[in-house]
Amino acid sequence: MDVRAAIALEAGQPLVVDTVQLEGPRAGEVMVEIKATGLCHTDKYTLSGADPEGLFPAILGHEGAGVVVEVGEGVTSLKPGDHVIPLYTPECRQCKSCLSRKTNLCTSIRATQGRGLMPDGTSRFSYKGKPVLHYMGCSTFANYTVLPEIALARIRPDAPFDTACYIGCGVTTGIGAVLFTAKVEAGASVVVFGLGGIGLNVIQGAKMVGAGMIVGVDLNPEREAMARRFGLTHFVNPKDHPDLVGHLVELTGGGADYSFECVGNTTLMRQALECAHRGWGVSTIIGVAGAGQEISTRPFQLVTGRRWIGSAFGGARGRTDVPKIVDWYMDNRISIDPLITHRLPLERINEGFDLMSRGESIRSVVVY
Amino acid sequence: MDVRAAIALEAGQPLVVDTVQLEGPRAGEVMVEIKATGLCHTDKYTLSGADPEGLFPAILGHEGAGVVVEVGEGVTSLKPGDHVIPLYTPECRQCKSCLSRKTNLCTSIRATQGRGLMPDGTSRFSYKGKPVLHYMGCSTFANYTVLPEIALARIRPDAPFDTACYIGCGVTTGIGAVLFTAKVEAGASVVVFGLGGIGLNVIQGAKMVGAGMIVGVDLNPEREAMARRFGLTHFVNPKDHPDLVGHLVELTGGGADYSFECVGNTTLMRQALECAHRGWGVSTIIGVAGAGQEISTRPFQLVTGRRWIGSAFGGARGRTDVPKIVDWYMDNRISIDPLITHRLPLERINEGFDLMSRGESIRSVVVY
Repeated sequence: MDVRAAIALEAGQPLVVDTVQLEGPRAGEVMVEIKATGLCHTDKYTLSGADPEGLFPAILGHEGAGVVVEVGEGVTSLKPGDHVIPLYTPECRQCKSCLSRKTNLCTSIRATQGRGLMPDGTSRFSYKGKPVLHYMGCSTFANYTVLPEIALARIRPDAPFDTACYIGCGVTTGIGAVLFTAKVEAGASVVVFGLGGIGLNVIQGAKMVGAGMIVGVDLNPEREAMARRFGLTHFVNPKDHPDLVGHLVELTGGGADYSFECVGNTTLMRQALECAHRGWGVSTIIGVAGAGQEISTRPFQLVTGRRWIGSAFGGARGRTDVPKIVDWYMDNRISIDPLITHRLPLERINEGFDLMSRGESIRSVVVY
Repeated sequence: MDVRAAIALEAGQPLVVDTVQLEGPRAGEVMVEIKATGLCHTDKYTLSGADPEGLFPAILGHEGAGVVVEVGEGVTSLKPGDHVIPLYTPECRQCKSCLSRKTNLCTSIRATQGRGLMPDGTSRFSYKGKPVLHYMGCSTFANYTVLPEIALARIRPDAPFDTACYIGCGVTTGIGAVLFTAKVEAGASVVVFGLGGIGLNVIQGAKMVGAGMIVGVDLNPEREAMARRFGLTHFVNPKDHPDLVGHLVELTGGGADYSFECVGNTTLMRQALECAHRGWGVSTIIGVAGAGQEISTRPFQLVTGRRWIGSAFGGARGRTDVPKIVDWYMDNRISIDPLITHRLPLERINEGFDLMSRGESIRSVVVY
C-alpha cells in the first residue's frame, strides 16, 4: 500500500517527504497507523551521519503513537483498533534478558533491528521499487508502519496521540531512569545535568517519588523556569561556579544521593559521577555520547562508594511499564503537555529538526 | 612505655626495627598488645613513597590481631583481655555514613586518621624524643599500639592470632566485596582478575555464596592450583587470548554476572567492566591504582546495563562484620591457613616485603 513518509535517503541531507510502499504484516507482525511522532535527538544524530550504525535509505522516527490496523498470523496480544506505542526496546518476555528480571534490554530481535530489518531479515518498506530500511524497529516517520508484536505497548484509548507519543522515548527515558534504573527514594537529593526534554522528565520522576532536593545544572538560564514547574528546587549555572563539582557537593551537603547525565557530554558524565555522595552516590548516564568518546575518572571515586551506571529507555520494560506511564499521564501524576512545544504536519518535519538544532523546542511532534 | 616497632623513617628506605615510646590510651582509646600482623601491599606502597598521602616517620601496619591491655576513660565496649582486630575502617555507628545503612565508610575520625593522628589530633608514638605518626589508624608494626575504641572489632578468643590477623584486611576485602558490595547470588558467573591474596579471597567468597562458574584471570599459571583449592572452576591466562574480553564473554555465555579487579591495574579494570554481561553485569574495583591513574570506557558500556562500582574493606562494617568472618573461619566455612605462606619475627620484617616484591608469598605474617 502507499503511505506517506519522510525518507532519509542519505546522511546529512534533509528528509524527503514522499509516498513509499509498505507491505502488510507477516507472521508475528502488526501494521499500525501512526497518528503522531516526536522528533528526537537520536533521529537527528542518525540523519547527520555521525552515528556509525546509521543505515540509509531508511524511514527514521521511533517516538510514535497510533492504532493497530492489521495483525499478521499468530498475533494474539493485539487486534485492529488497539491504541499502541511502538517500542524500540521490545519486550519478548522469553529471552535470557527478559527472564533475567535484571534488565529491560530484550535481545530477541536485536540483530535484525540493528540492521534495519524485520525479524525475518527483510524490510516492509520500498521506494521507487527498492527496499528502504526500518529504523530502531519503529519507523514512525510514516503514517503507516509495520512492527513486531513484541515491539508494541497497548495503551488506553483515551490518551491523546500527540502527547502520548512522547512516552515512546523521552518521557520514559527520563522518568524511568529515576524509577526503574536508579530507584530514587523519597527524601533523596538529586542532581540533573542538562534541562532539556530528558532532564525535565528526570526532574518530574524525582518529584514523583518524593525526592528532597532536586538540583538542575544547565548553561542556559532560560531553562530554570520550566524546570521549576516540573519540580526543580535549585538551579546551578556552571558559568557561575568554576569548581562545579565542589559547589554541587557543598550544596547537597556532601554530594548527591543520585545524579543523572542527560546531555551526552562525557565531561558532564564525569562531573555527575564525582558530585555523587561518597559511600553511596549513584550516577546514571542517560545521554548518548558521540561515537568513540570515552568517560574517565580516578578509580578511587568508585572504591570510595560511588556507583556508575547507565540507563536505556529508562530501564522500562516496554509492554509492561509504558502503559503504566500512560496511566500516570492521564491521571495527572506526570505532565507532558508543556513539553510539546511545537506541532507540525509531516511536510514540515525538517523545520522541526531546525527548531531542535537552534534549541528552540523542547519537543516537536509531527501530527499526521 | 617502651615497645618494639618497625619504623618507617622515610620513604623508600627499609623499615628500622627499634624501641619506640608509646603513651597510654586517652579518653575513648584502647591499648592493644599486637600478637601478629600481616604485611600488605598497601604498607609497601606507602613505604615506597609512591603514595601521595604517605607521611613519615610513621609506624606502618594495618592488618593485626591482638589483646586489649588497657582502656581509656569512657571506653565501654572493650575490656582488658578481649581479643581484637584493629580496623582501618572504623565503625562509630553514629555518623552520617554509618547511619545511612548504605556504606561501611565511617567518616567520624577520617580527618585525623588521614593525618596519622589519634582523634584528638596527637600521636601516641615517639622515637628519640620526637613524635612518630600512626598509620591508617592502626600501626600494627609495633607490639603495642593505641587505637580508638570504634576502630577495634572484638573477636572470639579461640581464633589464632597469626591467621585471624589476615581478616583485618585481605580476607575481609576479598570476601566482603563478594558478599557485602556486589552481593553475588547463588548460580552467578564470576570473573576474578588477579589471583593474589585478594583474588583468592574473592574466589572463596564466590564459592561460599554458591556462585556457578568462577573464572580466574592471571598471567602466572602457577596461581591456578591454589585458586582451584579455593573454588576456581576456570583459569584463563591472558597470554593465550589476544582478545581477552571477547574470550571471557564467550566463556561465560554472554558475559560475567559479576567481575572483580584485584590488582590495581586500570587496564584490567576496563577489561573487567567490559567482560561483564550486557544488561546487568556488575564490575567491582578492589585493587588500588597508582596515584593519578584513571579508568576509562565508552559510556555505551554503562548505558547498556553494566554497572561499575568499587569496594573498600569489602564493604564490611568493621565491628559488626569482622567478628562474623572470624566465626566463618573458625567454623571452616572459609579457609585462611594456606594463604599464610610465611611467618617471620619482627626483626625480619623487611624480608617479608622482599618476598612480596618477588611474588613468592601470598601473605607473610609477623608474629611478635
